Amino acid sequence: MSVILLTPDELTNSSETRLSLEDLFRRDFVLHDPEARWINDTDVVYKSENGHVIKLNIETNATTLLLENTTFVTFKASKHSVSPDLKYVLLAYDVKQIFHYSYTASYVIYNIHTREVWELNPPEVEDSILQYAAWGVQGQQLIYIFENNIYYQPDIKSSSLRLTSSGKEGIIFNGIADWLYEEELLHSHIAHWWSPDGERLAFLMINDSLVPNMVIPRFTGALYPKGKQYPYPKAGQMNPTIKLYVVNLYGPTHTLELMPPDSFKSREYYITMVKWVSNTKTVVRWLNRPQNISILTVCQTTTGACSRKYEMTSDTWLSKQNEEPVFSRDGSKFFMTVPVKQGGRGEFHHIAMFLVQSKSEQITVRHLTSGNWEVIKILAYDETTQKIYFLSTESSPRGRQLYSASTEGLLNRQCISCNFMKEQCTYFDANFSPMNQHFLLLCKGPGVPVISLHSTENPAKYFILESNSMLKETILKKKIVKSEIKMLHIDDYELPLQLSFPKDFTDRNQYALLLIMDEEPGGQLVTDKFHIDWDSVLVDTDNVITARFDGRGSGFQGLKILQEIHRRLGSVEVKDQIAAVKFLLKQPYIDSKRLSIFGKGYGGYIASMILKSDEKLFKCGSVIAPITDLKLYASAFSERYLGMPSREESTYQASSVLHNIHGLKEENILIIHGTADTKVHFQHSAELIKHLIKAGVNYTMQVYPDEGHNVSEKSKYHLYSTILRFFSDCLKEEIPVLPQEPEEDE
Amino acid sequence: MSVILLTPDELTNSSETRLSLEDLFRRDFVLHDPEARWINDTDVVYKSENGHVIKLNIETNATTLLLENTTFVTFKASKHSVSPDLKYVLLAYDVKQIFHYSYTASYVIYNIHTREVWELNPPEVEDSILQYAAWGVQGQQLIYIFENNIYYQPDIKSSSLRLTSSGKEGIIFNGIADWLYEEELLHSHIAHWWSPDGERLAFLMINDSLVPNMVIPRFTGALYPKGKQYPYPKAGQMNPTIKLYVVNLYGPTHTLELMPPDSFKSREYYITMVKWVSNTKTVVRWLNRPQNISILTVCQTTTGACSRKYEMTSDTWLSKQNEEPVFSRDGSKFFMTVPVKQGGRGEFHHIAMFLVQSKSEQITVRHLTSGNWEVIKILAYDETTQKIYFLSTESSPRGRQLYSASTEGLLNRQCISCNFMKEQCTYFDANFSPMNQHFLLLCKGPGVPVISLHSTENPAKYFILESNSMLKETILKKKIVKSEIKMLHIDDYELPLQLSFPKDFTDRNQYALLLIMDEEPGGQLVTDKFHIDWDSVLVDTDNVITARFDGRGSGFQGLKILQEIHRRLGSVEVKDQIAAVKFLLKQPYIDSKRLSIFGKGYGGYIASMILKSDEKLFKCGSVIAPITDLKLYASAFSERYLGMPSREESTYQASSVLHNIHGLKEENILIIHGTADTKVHFQHSAELIKHLIKAGVNYTMQVYPDEGHNVSEKSKYHLYSTILRFFSDCLKEEIPVLPQEPEEDE
Repeated sequence: MSVILLTPDELTNSSETRLSLEDLFRRDFVLHDPEARWINDTDVVYKSENGHVIKLNIETNATTLLLENTTFVTFKASKHSVSPDLKYVLLAYDVKQIFHYSYTASYVIYNIHTREVWELNPPEVEDSILQYAAWGVQGQQLIYIFENNIYYQPDIKSSSLRLTSSGKEGIIFNGIADWLYEEELLHSHIAHWWSPDGERLAFLMINDSLVPNMVIPRFTGALYPKGKQYPYPKAGQMNPTIKLYVVNLYGPTHTLELMPPDSFKSREYYITMVKWVSNTKTVVRWLNRPQNISILTVCQTTTGACSRKYEMTSDTWLSKQNEEPVFSRDGSKFFMTVPVKQGGRGEFHHIAMFLVQSKSEQITVRHLTSGNWEVIKILAYDETTQKIYFLSTESSPRGRQLYSASTEGLLNRQCISCNFMKEQCTYFDANFSPMNQHFLLLCKGPGVPVISLHSTENPAKYFILESNSMLKETILKKKIVKSEIKMLHIDDYELPLQLSFPKDFTDRNQYALLLIMDEEPGGQLVTDKFHIDWDSVLVDTDNVITARFDGRGSGFQGLKILQEIHRRLGSVEVKDQIAAVKFLLKQPYIDSKRLSIFGKGYGGYIASMILKSDEKLFKCGSVIAPITDLKLYASAFSERYLGMPSREESTYQASSVLHNIHGLKEENILIIHGTADTKVHFQHSAELIKHLIKAGVNYTMQVYPDEGHNVSEKSKYHLYSTILRFFSDCLKEEIPVLPQEPEEDE
Repeated sequence: MSVILLTPDELTNSSETRLSLEDLFRRDFVLHDPEARWINDTDVVYKSENGHVIKLNIETNATTLLLENTTFVTFKASKHSVSPDLKYVLLAYDVKQIFHYSYTASYVIYNIHTREVWELNPPEVEDSILQYAAWGVQGQQLIYIFENNIYYQPDIKSSSLRLTSSGKEGIIFNGIADWLYEEELLHSHIAHWWSPDGERLAFLMINDSLVPNMVIPRFTGALYPKGKQYPYPKAGQMNPTIKLYVVNLYGPTHTLELMPPDSFKSREYYITMVKWVSNTKTVVRWLNRPQNISILTVCQTTTGACSRKYEMTSDTWLSKQNEEPVFSRDGSKFFMTVPVKQGGRGEFHHIAMFLVQSKSEQITVRHLTSGNWEVIKILAYDETTQKIYFLSTESSPRGRQLYSASTEGLLNRQCISCNFMKEQCTYFDANFSPMNQHFLLLCKGPGVPVISLHSTENPAKYFILESNSMLKETILKKKIVKSEIKMLHIDDYELPLQLSFPKDFTDRNQYALLLIMDEEPGGQLVTDKFHIDWDSVLVDTDNVITARFDGRGSGFQGLKILQEIHRRLGSVEVKDQIAAVKFLLKQPYIDSKRLSIFGKGYGGYIASMILKSDEKLFKCGSVIAPITDLKLYASAFSERYLGMPSREESTYQASSVLHNIHGLKEENILIIHGTADTKVHFQHSAELIKHLIKAGVNYTMQVYPDEGHNVSEKSKYHLYSTILRFFSDCLKEEIPVLPQEPEEDE
């Protein structure tokens, strides 16, 4: 008989205190993002911890105050951007989130010197709410989007020029993405791109006129709240059609369509990437609807002629379709990652150099990297040194290190970041200055994130822009969890399982377990990224062990692992997670009676499928905004993994949580969903609940009225405390009660 | 220290078993409603327990089978009605509930003799879905409503005549009620009335064109579910306007408007009652929007002239506005209840006889009853004996007995039902045959309901139509709760508190308590009606005592008690319920640590207000579809008690659950709501939740997707088990845990 008191008093007199939910909401727990960006090769503009916008010259270390923090207060502004000539700031206020990235806002233009202010409004419109507004790339060029049309101003004083007129709310989108492009294809709401000289603008026109509309109801805030609707193609439904235009901004404006490759002309396709490679040329990636053929073209924007440079096909689906190739200045070569087979372990993404024969337009390919690891991102190509800079997982699949490699001779690959803050930093991102003289190095973990500025020539010489010292200090006082990675062998794969233990963990005790799912397929849960969230509180205050397992379907460990879920979504992931749990059940420190599971979105889907499976391992589970049927989810997502529902009816049915719902009978389930979720509609949970009610299954529910896929800041505390309470109640050790004799009262 | 085991094993070996939730859903637990109705003075048509439709002659006891139960199966029909000439049956299938009473359906006409079948369709429409269809009063007269217009057929073979053409979906309603009239004014969806000879039809035209629409979202059942909207005037918003027409059906149809009294012509008003008193005259009740002036007129439908017969006013609001006066055949007198002052105890509803002087049209009034009790309903006036038949609370405010009284001389009041099945029956309803020779007597409690047929001349001679013997037998085997009534003295009132005890109750033990709220103000919870529901299961299986208290605001105990809530809705009721609980806390058998509360609709509102109050008496509470702010609820309801929101802002605020929500911090709350509730919109719970989230209050939630104010039959089991589990968990006695030393594992 094992009885363990959950909060032994003798431990609290240590100087370290347990991490509490309140801690997460304390000011000194917030990671500061300076939003640093290069404005030229030596100057960075960033927001300091106290909110001033500052220009920093990396060579002289001189700083210039561009904008005082009080300016934000004065204009109730929550976003800012500095004009290319550093004379003006665009300030956004009344910012209202629409989808994942998009928001509407009103804007003022603020003169840094004179402190003069203008409202930014389309001609003959007052107090306008814009869908987008930003500086161009030169001087005071301004662009904004209003009622789905693009407007352009050469400078802040000149009047606006409307570049498109086809825009129609909820139907035709110019320069801005519809829901599908924003969430599932571009991963950005911005669907326009400046030429380097600012003389041309490429933009998408997305036509949703045949796409069915989804209604998002509204419940609060008015006597008669009105819902809203927006085009959302569910699996197999009509998709938006897309056209790519280039408009020249100098002289009489002239708009030219860039045409898809001939083989795509009579098919449905997506555009997944547009990038300028010179002042007149763009590179464009076209992807067919089944997402297994993709064509890269280079388009001459003066004529509209596109020539195909590279075609990729896949037996499953093509990943990394947003990747922007890096071109040499003369366009004679470009760099891109392509899948390269590494023996029996399948394909891994590696850098290929494409050399364009100037006369024949023939292309030769040279592979610059290889190995059982992945190139994550090509960052820069330095013309003078002919070096390529990139991030890869060479040192560890959980880490990201900055490497350089020569594009000639022996290639001579070197790790630049590997020795930088070795203890604290193994997971990096980097951001090169326009001419590659300097770079921002973003250490994202495992320690508290740090941002530093480096010279490319001598990377060891650096300047710390942000050390998050306050957070670092605060964390030192807390009993932060310890974590450990174990490699599991499943079906010829070595897959990582990360466990987070309470700091006073001892394997002589038995602990409850929370298994956490990833939010998207192709993602990675077991990484060296700094992480502190509600689950850390659960580990720390409720003595729970959390586990994260990157099974088949997870990313950055080669394409074979990633693509194992093709046509098997919701099946292989379930098997692997269960295998991980069964491994854990062999550990003496895991209490088999107190296992739980958590997932959000796709993770909620997998969690539900696991709970539904025949293996009754879990006592309880919580799902947020779970996908419950892939037929109800976005076309570009569901079709990528499962194909068209009309052809794959049984695949869709087998993958549905709603099918054979009786499997969910034994566990205690908490379902959380915002009623205004535009990504995974409340419909998913409503159908789930309806099926559970019909099957007589008990569950707990938390509804966030009129909240989206991510609950608002003001509801976050409530959400976290709801989840924590649920798991804490479910996972607490049941203390056996000794039967007592009934006694008389008084 | 008191420790009581909740389910002592030694009790289960008794032959009685505890009532379980499953029992409530067993076939032998269902009360059978034979839907008996008089078709002439000696014949009744009813549905037998096995589903046959039968005609019974009460004088000969001869039965005729009109329709076999299999006919319902053949046509998937769920409703039926027999034509006045007994030759045809109208069968409704695909019945879909709209609001409380209204439903759409498709209909077939079935020839009882030939078994021939016709679809009932408007001209040139196929497979129509009708809003209403029924026989008229003579022969094979048929009426139906389609797209808000009334259609008439003189017999089943003739073609349809469209009587109105103004009907417009969701805007203009002819002969059928809009939401407000159905739910809050007429308490029926039928807004048309046949003259006794079937030659004329009176009907309402309700115009909702200025009434704001409420949107009811839909979440399930389709890839892109569409919500629906319907006019719903919230407090202070534009109300529907109303006109009353009479159309003659013989000869060329001619429609005449019956005009409101002059004093109402420029005001907003409701029509709350229409009744034919002869073949050409109707009596109509008109009520002003504040509901404190009502005018009864008699209208000559051949000319449209209405003459006012009686005007009522009130300092608070007028109740019983649906009451139909009973007229003598010649129209020289009519009977109606009016408030009559009974000393210090205020007014009670008593029968008044209104004598119309034939020449002067002057009216003299004679009061036929008086006393500290209420006349509930005038049932019949027998012209030959000059006796009036009515239901009253004379023998007990909790009962309803059938009385007769002479309308002449000493009035000579006699109780007809008082000695009928004395032990089992003290709560009656009755239904007289057209010429008052016989009556159906419906015993509704406290025993298992019984329906009997009586001769008016010799009521002691009777025939049992329905004894519900199966239910009676089943119940005998169950440990059904015992109940007890205590009278509490509050503010000069004697108010009844009903307690239901587990059958093995002993006052040496301590019990948890559930206090149950009434669903509507002016209702009555403490009655002799037969009652067995989920709360009986709680009493029986969880050893909980349930309490019902009719405090101020409750009905049938005089108007003073009823009207105490005027402008104080949500305040006096809260005080009285708390007073009742405080009384209970003095009883040794109540465990003060285990008190809970339950309410639905208005009852959910009162329960929330009680939980919010400073008195922290309750451990937990559950509310279903709670009204949380009267501004969000129906005009005719909210304005009756609180006036117009524009003038009574502070009254509305004080009465809102959402105001000072922090009061709800300490209790454990379960909120239950159907998202498609058309009466109390999900909006109420959404606003409540939003406020609770903001205030950081914990609660539990159960959402029924796309379900209405009353959950569907298929969700009822889930609803009940959710409520029972909640109270069972909350109210279970906490058994103290002896602290134990941690032990080493294995």
